Amino acid sequence: MDQEQARAWLATAVAEARTGLAEGGIPIGAALYGPDGTLLGRGHNRRVQDDDPSMHAETAAFRAAGRQRTYRGTTMVTTLSPCWYCSGLVRQFGISRVVIGEAVTFRGGHDWLAGHGVEIVLLEDPGCVELMRAFIENDPALWNEDIGE
Amino acid sequence: MDQEQARAWLATAVAEARTGLAEGGIPIGAALYGPDGTLLGRGHNRRVQDDDPSMHAETAAFRAAGRQRTYRGTTMVTTLSPCWYCSGLVRQFGISRVVIGEAVTFRGGHDWLAGHGVEIVLLEDPGCVELMRAFIENDPALWNEDIGE
Repeated sequence: MDQEQARAWLATAVAEARTGLAEGGIPIGAALYGPDGTLLGRGHNRRVQDDDPSMHAETAAFRAAGRQRTYRGTTMVTTLSPCWYCSGLVRQFGISRVVIGEAVTFRGGHDWLAGHGVEIVLLEDPGCVELMRAFIENDPALWNEDIGE
Repeated sequence: MDQEQARAWLATAVAEARTGLAEGGIPIGAALYGPDGTLLGRGHNRRVQDDDPSMHAETAAFRAAGRQRTYRGTTMVTTLSPCWYCSGLVRQFGISRVVIGEAVTFRGGHDWLAGHGVEIVLLEDPGCVELMRAFIENDPALWNEDIGE
């Protein structure tokens, strides 16, 4: 896909991550875009805010998009490489593409997704790296809790 | 694990599935048990009830259990073989064991989990098969929506 488009969509996910950080939460954001570029849903990790371990950024964006008949042609945009939970979501529902802010601070299941036909656009955005690096340094216990380590 | 124990835990997941069916929803239930046999959380698919595609039975049970520091030694019990989304959940959070009611009407990612060290107990319970078979026959479109097909 067009890199300029990918970066524009990533900005939505970054805004979600920053909202999460401002709420005292884990700074990971995501957005689900339709085949025609319509924003279907956006969200951020809500472990701290809602005491809800099931709401990762990607699952929050997926939930916000509501019930969809098909995910063919949709793009999940996330500030961080998707963990196995969120990679499984992408595979199960047939989301066609994942745009990833960075995979430096955490490497999830995006290679597995690529091997199953999902288009992966890895931007390695320095702003996303810095956001996670500062968070992990500041609260490693919370981060480990969120990824089950 | 002990088959009698597995069947006793499965009954909790089946009760959840039946509650979901009575609510007009998709009849899949799950429960998360701690290493000492404590029930940590239970739930059922809530796609129809809450218009929430992110709440599969396993994610609902996981959410109901709240924030946990570790999932080592826990068991996810589910009436149906876990889809990729729910299998990813199990892998990411290091849930140690999955007890499955049946994998006849749907086969998810439990072989993949076994390959990654998760203990799989597949009961092939006729009551679970019948529950899903009747549901799928009655509303195939809803079932396909729930698994992204």
